[in-house]
Amino acid sequence: MSFQTKSWRTKLQEVIFESNTLGGKIFDVALLVCIIISILAVMLDSVATIHLRYGHFFYIIEWVFTFLFTIEFILRLIAVKQPLRYAFSFFGIIDLLAIVPMYLSVIFVGAQSLLVLRALRLLRIFRIFKLTHFLSEMSFLGSALRSSIKKICIFMLVVLTLVIILGSVMYLVESEESGFGSIPDSIYWAIVTITTVGYGDISPVSPMGKFIASIMMLLGYGIIAVPTGIVTTEMVSLARLKKHSGDTCPGCGKEGHDADAVFCKFCGEKL
Amino acid sequence: MSFQTKSWRTKLQEVIFESNTLGGKIFDVALLVCIIISILAVMLDSVATIHLRYGHFFYIIEWVFTFLFTIEFILRLIAVKQPLRYAFSFFGIIDLLAIVPMYLSVIFVGAQSLLVLRALRLLRIFRIFKLTHFLSEMSFLGSALRSSIKKICIFMLVVLTLVIILGSVMYLVESEESGFGSIPDSIYWAIVTITTVGYGDISPVSPMGKFIASIMMLLGYGIIAVPTGIVTTEMVSLARLKKHSGDTCPGCGKEGHDADAVFCKFCGEKL
Amino acid sequence: MSFQTKSWRTKLQEVIFESNTLGGKIFDVALLVCIIISILAVMLDSVATIHLRYGHFFYIIEWVFTFLFTIEFILRLIAVKQPLRYAFSFFGIIDLLAIVPMYLSVIFVGAQSLLVLRALRLLRIFRIFKLTHFLSEMSFLGSALRSSIKKICIFMLVVLTLVIILGSVMYLVESEESGFGSIPDSIYWAIVTITTVGYGDISPVSPMGKFIASIMMLLGYGIIAVPTGIVTTEMVSLARLKKHSGDTCPGCGKEGHDADAVFCKFCGEKL
Amino acid sequence: MSFQTKSWRTKLQEVIFESNTLGGKIFDVALLVCIIISILAVMLDSVATIHLRYGHFFYIIEWVFTFLFTIEFILRLIAVKQPLRYAFSFFGIIDLLAIVPMYLSVIFVGAQSLLVLRALRLLRIFRIFKLTHFLSEMSFLGSALRSSIKKICIFMLVVLTLVIILGSVMYLVESEESGFGSIPDSIYWAIVTITTVGYGDISPVSPMGKFIASIMMLLGYGIIAVPTGIVTTEMVSLARLKKHSGDTCPGCGKEGHDADAVFCKFCGEKL
Repeated sequence: MSFQTKSWRTKLQEVIFESNTLGGKIFDVALLVCIIISILAVMLDSVATIHLRYGHFFYIIEWVFTFLFTIEFILRLIAVKQPLRYAFSFFGIIDLLAIVPMYLSVIFVGAQSLLVLRALRLLRIFRIFKLTHFLSEMSFLGSALRSSIKKICIFMLVVLTLVIILGSVMYLVESEESGFGSIPDSIYWAIVTITTVGYGDISPVSPMGKFIASIMMLLGYGIIAVPTGIVTTEMVSLARLKKHSGDTCPGCGKEGHDADAVFCKFCGEKL
Repeated sequence: MSFQTKSWRTKLQEVIFESNTLGGKIFDVALLVCIIISILAVMLDSVATIHLRYGHFFYIIEWVFTFLFTIEFILRLIAVKQPLRYAFSFFGIIDLLAIVPMYLSVIFVGAQSLLVLRALRLLRIFRIFKLTHFLSEMSFLGSALRSSIKKICIFMLVVLTLVIILGSVMYLVESEESGFGSIPDSIYWAIVTITTVGYGDISPVSPMGKFIASIMMLLGYGIIAVPTGIVTTEMVSLARLKKHSGDTCPGCGKEGHDADAVFCKFCGEKL
Repeated sequence: MSFQTKSWRTKLQEVIFESNTLGGKIFDVALLVCIIISILAVMLDSVATIHLRYGHFFYIIEWVFTFLFTIEFILRLIAVKQPLRYAFSFFGIIDLLAIVPMYLSVIFVGAQSLLVLRALRLLRIFRIFKLTHFLSEMSFLGSALRSSIKKICIFMLVVLTLVIILGSVMYLVESEESGFGSIPDSIYWAIVTITTVGYGDISPVSPMGKFIASIMMLLGYGIIAVPTGIVTTEMVSLARLKKHSGDTCPGCGKEGHDADAVFCKFCGEKL
Repeated sequence: MSFQTKSWRTKLQEVIFESNTLGGKIFDVALLVCIIISILAVMLDSVATIHLRYGHFFYIIEWVFTFLFTIEFILRLIAVKQPLRYAFSFFGIIDLLAIVPMYLSVIFVGAQSLLVLRALRLLRIFRIFKLTHFLSEMSFLGSALRSSIKKICIFMLVVLTLVIILGSVMYLVESEESGFGSIPDSIYWAIVTITTVGYGDISPVSPMGKFIASIMMLLGYGIIAVPTGIVTTEMVSLARLKKHSGDTCPGCGKEGHDADAVFCKFCGEKL
């Protein structure tokens, strides 16, 4: 951002990777539109009746977008100073996965199923959001989740243990006919139950099974409070931290004082 | 509200739009009763057996209410100073939609399906609530949601991405017979699963599908904590703000005193 | 609790209505056991196979408990100073409903269905809890819910409006064959969906219906955050109030000072 | 941890029960791997098709792990100073239950069903977590749940009462054909509904039943806010307590300073 004439690479980088300039904003919006259309095309093409009538049309569209995304990928490789580092970054791999399946489907016949990978294109939307005014909100959510990740891991471990043990017990209690044919199936049922999803494809039949299922439902209904409490607590304390971080001490210049502080808590200077 | 003789328009406005006066209160209650009865009539008339027996009766009732609401709409147009501005406001359109379908159903035969629009009459109830002592509660909920809207948008975007990607994967993993016939159908299933609704009209059959479904359920069960945390955090900080609103100590200039404080809690000065 | 000899009525009241004395505790536990056994008897008697074999036995048990509860009811009427006020209080009516159905079932043959009213006996358990050390916890929950009742009413009104409007729309969009036969049925489906219960007895079939259903599920999944936020906010502020209510001002004797208060906020006295 | 030569028992205890030393860490990881493999073997062996092909192989694996866990159990008994106290502790019983079913299945033919008890091995994972850096997180969650246990008990009692009374009412309202065959079945349905699980194996058919069910769903959807509020409140106040722990100002004697405070925020004195 110096006053010197920018190199073409810097300009390219500004357009493709940033969104402060007009060019960058136009590029972002165009990319967003392309991603959404290409995803919609993939989705609609999977519907049998639509595929029969418009299959050829979608095939052409798909090639157009693959071509556009390939050009974009090459431009990104050129624009960055360390192409390899980009290529192996999270977004680099996503960008590659957005174009590779189409080429592979031509070379290998068995690669048809890889076409679903194109749905990963959706992840590219987050690159655009990273650059806009959603950034501070995203970092807020990110740090709230990061600081509660350990507690949530423990919670998930407890849930998994509950689900495995209660699933095994249900395998014993319920007969094979009612869907509890194996321990993995019973655990699947236990997850369906404790998360309050409740498909009903497998459901207990015996009185004892219904009793255990009732306990599991009440458990699942109650312990949802735990992750909610964890995340809320982190968010509340983060929000408080953020709110009081404005005031700067005239003595030492440090921030982070409480709203009711009379003296700087770092240097003792009167605020 | 001066001591001069009010014009008939001011009086009309007081009765129709406000609820401080006795006339206004009676009008509000009468309108509330009319709305609820007319909605109940629409609902009951849609039941085939009831329609067969009382269809004619409901038809008459409906015309009575359409007539009443038409008069009300005209009175509102007269009462306000800027009739056009009212007519194109949110509540103006709702008021119009409450009466138009019935007239259209006479003119056009194909407009029968528009009659369902009458359910929008229900939204008119909120006009009455806007004027009463629920106002401060509504504005509290409103501002809590407004200040968390960005974070919730990001959350919804993450959920949508998860649902589209995992739905596409399930389309690949599960066979067509078990209901995963197209990507849109699979995404519909993914939404049913991640929101813990779990109809069971489509449910995974293969072990791999059940495994992915289990992960989705646990995800959906866990990430409900995020919007809850966002809204709660905003509400907690709003509630605190509200409590500590305004008062500054004349002695030390500090804020943050309780509403019932007579003296400054920091320097003892009378507030 | 004076040193004078207590009257028999005071003693009776202590045993029946309070639980500080040994007699009162024994009475409470005995009553608790009677209530639970009688409820279990009612429940088991409703199972056809058990009724066939043990029906007569349950009939005798039921009469024994009805007799015991009748004696208890009479004793309560004698023990209190204002029998009529007790008889028409919440617990007085519940106590009466616990015994009346059995007598009515003898007199009227059609009163058999009233026997289910005996399940209301369960509410009597809360009288015992009212007297014990759960009292402060209950009053905490009670006041948290009381102060958030208005906000929750508005929330419920919004949910009901959503459910009625979206239910009406679904009635239009979906055919009668898929279960959306009338507006009330469609509203029932909308409630099943938005509350994330998802029975699956009615589920959308058409693409448009599935799309609207998906939006409803995401809505229902998201707005659960609102009541949770409301209740949590009230509880957090109540808990804070409770924590800081201990300190008493030496000057004016008032409570409710903040933890960081230096001077009494009511009289300016140094704390 | 003295500089003297440790006895073999101390060394054994360090390896088996603690995880500060290298040996202890290796033992922990090895144990974790053994537990997970043995659980997976139990789970896979329950699938009929896998059992047919690899049943013998799993049988051998099971005996190997039973042998290993038996040695471990004996070593634990030797390592601790009070073997009996260990044997009757929670983890002692779990350790025993991990090996006993296999031996019993040889002696008694009817003990086959006991083999499911091996799923309890999973609980042994928590012993390993107890010793690692998850300890403080676990104690946080533990104390949050402990201090909210009373309120949650009351909540569960209210839910149980609701479920029993509304289940009984539904038994009356709905016919036997739609699945409400007995009060216990109706209560099972009520739990499925109020916890928003919604299997759909039993669902109301009559208009009155659907109406009551709708109310239950809205209730269940709303009151989930209560346990969430309880747990969140406890966590928020615990988190605040933890942050402000301990430090008292030598100048003014006040507490509540931040962990990173160098000077008292009320009087400016050095802490």
